[in-house]
Amino acid sequence: MSGTLVVAGLGPGDEALVTPEVATALADATDVVGYIPYVARIPARDGLTLHATDNRVELARATHALDLAAAGRRVVVVSSGDPGVFAMASAVFEAVEQAPRLAHVDIRILPGITAMLAAAARAGAPLGHDFCAINLSDNLKPWETVARRLRLAAQADFAMAFYNPRSASRPHQLARALEILREECGPDRLIIFARAVTTPEERLSVTTLAEARAEMADMRTVVLVGNASTRRVGRHVYTPRRAE
Amino acid sequence: MSGTLVVAGLGPGDEALVTPEVATALADATDVVGYIPYVARIPARDGLTLHATDNRVELARATHALDLAAAGRRVVVVSSGDPGVFAMASAVFEAVEQAPRLAHVDIRILPGITAMLAAAARAGAPLGHDFCAINLSDNLKPWETVARRLRLAAQADFAMAFYNPRSASRPHQLARALEILREECGPDRLIIFARAVTTPEERLSVTTLAEARAEMADMRTVVLVGNASTRRVGRHVYTPRRAE
Repeated sequence: MSGTLVVAGLGPGDEALVTPEVATALADATDVVGYIPYVARIPARDGLTLHATDNRVELARATHALDLAAAGRRVVVVSSGDPGVFAMASAVFEAVEQAPRLAHVDIRILPGITAMLAAAARAGAPLGHDFCAINLSDNLKPWETVARRLRLAAQADFAMAFYNPRSASRPHQLARALEILREECGPDRLIIFARAVTTPEERLSVTTLAEARAEMADMRTVVLVGNASTRRVGRHVYTPRRAE
Repeated sequence: MSGTLVVAGLGPGDEALVTPEVATALADATDVVGYIPYVARIPARDGLTLHATDNRVELARATHALDLAAAGRRVVVVSSGDPGVFAMASAVFEAVEQAPRLAHVDIRILPGITAMLAAAARAGAPLGHDFCAINLSDNLKPWETVARRLRLAAQADFAMAFYNPRSASRPHQLARALEILREECGPDRLIIFARAVTTPEERLSVTTLAEARAEMADMRTVVLVGNASTRRVGRHVYTPRRAE
């Protein structure tokens, strides 16, 4: 009597960016599990139980969802963006690894529009050439690892997207990241602060590395950094497909 | 009498991965412009003109689409995946830069599910920690640039996604990329060959760097490379959220 576990990406916020695949999974679910603001996006209906939990308990949330599925429920774990990009999919597999009793649960991951790609689309095409995505949080890795990675990424001339650039408990990461970029890149390097893209609170600002300040980001911001060729055309920012 | 230009991502192939935002734009279009197999996905209807062109003419296609929009049409340029990831969005901005007469056209980019994230979801969560996306084609950049970037990305311990790993006109890139990875990473490094994900021709195979062969990829394949911590759990591959 094993159920199913689906880990679904809700995209950046606008319901028009939820894929039909995810909408179908949600319509079929008996249980939806996730962080409070993401579960709040799911309308209540008969036969559906909503399980909203705090953000700092990913592993416990994943285990709870797997136990529900093992008991025969059709469970959807909701993430914002894409579940495979700094979101719940890895936590679910970590939970399986730690609890062999859950190894038989049927798990499917459904992709979604991740924040950096929604932000890039709003700005133009700043990730139009080789790029990387870095989680600036040092909750789960030492800052030295982040710093080294940033420096190598700049030397490789990747465009970059920073997730979790700044929060109340981690106010200094982005300032340190900008310092590293200033050592490796020129002052005219374009930086985009994209907050809450596709929601009513959306705010997009384009600046240069010389003018960028950590205070321009908060926990709802994704920061995009151009490569050496990234430039403005009209109100847009784009990275050419060619490279030297 | 200016129209609009939308650059829309159709996702990896399955219609259930086309966002409602993109579906709405297509329903409202007077003209759809794109590479032949992507335009073939759009059903014909009265009032809609389909413009299908060959793949090697991105800039000419973009200029054509912009000229249609400048003449008052509602034009959608279709890309597979996400238009901002190695697709048509950058080509459109290049075309605007080269033709100032088109600077007034209203351009919007609509994100889609890009191949690496669809492939990652099928495999589990191999991009669950910091990662990069690299276009292995050297059509538009020297191979030395690709090689240097690959080496730095491996040293930074990024998980990686390779787009355009191999084609008839570029048969050697992936073999050279694997050689570089073998110099920088251990033989057990996990490699995923994901072909035509979400289509009837989907084929996914997981192997190690020691066993990986360039012939496992073709032009419809995206190649995912784990980081040093990426591992299997059951039939899935995932990258933990923690790093040393």
